[in-house]
Amino acid sequence: MEFSSKLLENAVREMSQLPGIGKRTALRLVLHLLRQPAEQTERLAFALRSLRNEVKYCRNCHNISDTDLCEICANPKRDESLVCVVEDIRDVMAIENTSQYKGLYHVLGGKISPLDGVGPNNLNISTLINKVKEGQVREVIFALSSTMEGDTTNFYIYKQIEAYGVTTSTIARGIAVGDELEYADEITLGRSILHRIPFENSLKG
Amino acid sequence: MEFSSKLLENAVREMSQLPGIGKRTALRLVLHLLRQPAEQTERLAFALRSLRNEVKYCRNCHNISDTDLCEICANPKRDESLVCVVEDIRDVMAIENTSQYKGLYHVLGGKISPLDGVGPNNLNISTLINKVKEGQVREVIFALSSTMEGDTTNFYIYKQIEAYGVTTSTIARGIAVGDELEYADEITLGRSILHRIPFENSLKG
Repeated sequence: MEFSSKLLENAVREMSQLPGIGKRTALRLVLHLLRQPAEQTERLAFALRSLRNEVKYCRNCHNISDTDLCEICANPKRDESLVCVVEDIRDVMAIENTSQYKGLYHVLGGKISPLDGVGPNNLNISTLINKVKEGQVREVIFALSSTMEGDTTNFYIYKQIEAYGVTTSTIARGIAVGDELEYADEITLGRSILHRIPFENSLKG
Repeated sequence: MEFSSKLLENAVREMSQLPGIGKRTALRLVLHLLRQPAEQTERLAFALRSLRNEVKYCRNCHNISDTDLCEICANPKRDESLVCVVEDIRDVMAIENTSQYKGLYHVLGGKISPLDGVGPNNLNISTLINKVKEGQVREVIFALSSTMEGDTTNFYIYKQIEAYGVTTSTIARGIAVGDELEYADEITLGRSILHRIPFENSLKG
């Protein structure tokens, strides 16, 4: 792409650094900003810089938070002996939306992925293991995505905490509520049969 | 969407003001920036603000340019009696890529679209008409997209310049080179038959 303006070229190049934004999309977005009042660009730039420079993470669960201890960890009604291990804040938001979970979270900040250069030391794993060691935790629930990286991360953590007698569980995998069996992939359907639950239990949900 | 942080919420809200970026995508992009070095966010914010605040438009063709007169208008080898009317810089870039056009451009900055509140006075139309009035222009080529708004804009400009004896043309519509006839829409195929060209002419391109 040849640009008639260095300013435009820079803006497009920086915008296209974002994941899933190619040069064409970046150009479309940047031209949109040019057609809007300058205040919109100022607000966007300010919001991004403020977040990046002032972002704080909860000292207990590592979720993004404006306070030293996030609202969930600071809530005395939550069960702190139950810890759900997730990848990032989006998973926390998704689980919170269900209103089904009353424990705390532990946000790893990613998954172990040697190909991407992410090892255990790049993630918030040691603080989780410390929590378990200190005996505050009754159950650790693994809620990472069921990919190779997710499974590896689960197993790595499991190996480090199994000696401390903590209960470990993973969220149930199966056919989504309302889905047709014929369209389900065979791995999911296979697991949902292997891990079937007593019928009476299904009446409670 | 409920956020655990006001900073995060602001960044996601501003990001999702961009066209085609929903709240979920905005969150994904913002979390990506948090995982990258702070310099990347600084560069993005700086590039967007610089462009928005310092952008200049060519005084002749209104294309985005870092100089008072853009490179194309300033090039003495280009034929200034030929003016191609386009919507925005993306069209200029697309036509320049073909290396087939040696005239100048006139960038309208949009199309007449009453539904979006865009009238003739919001576009760079009067300067085009002045150029024609002053007799510098031999031919005006309409290269707007063939939508209702594009056709309206073409016709509005045409009505204002027809009295000045300037040649007007539109770019050829037809079946794309290499495309199969059976997959072409009937309007395009119909036009390509109506506006067929002498066979010998097709050998030149």
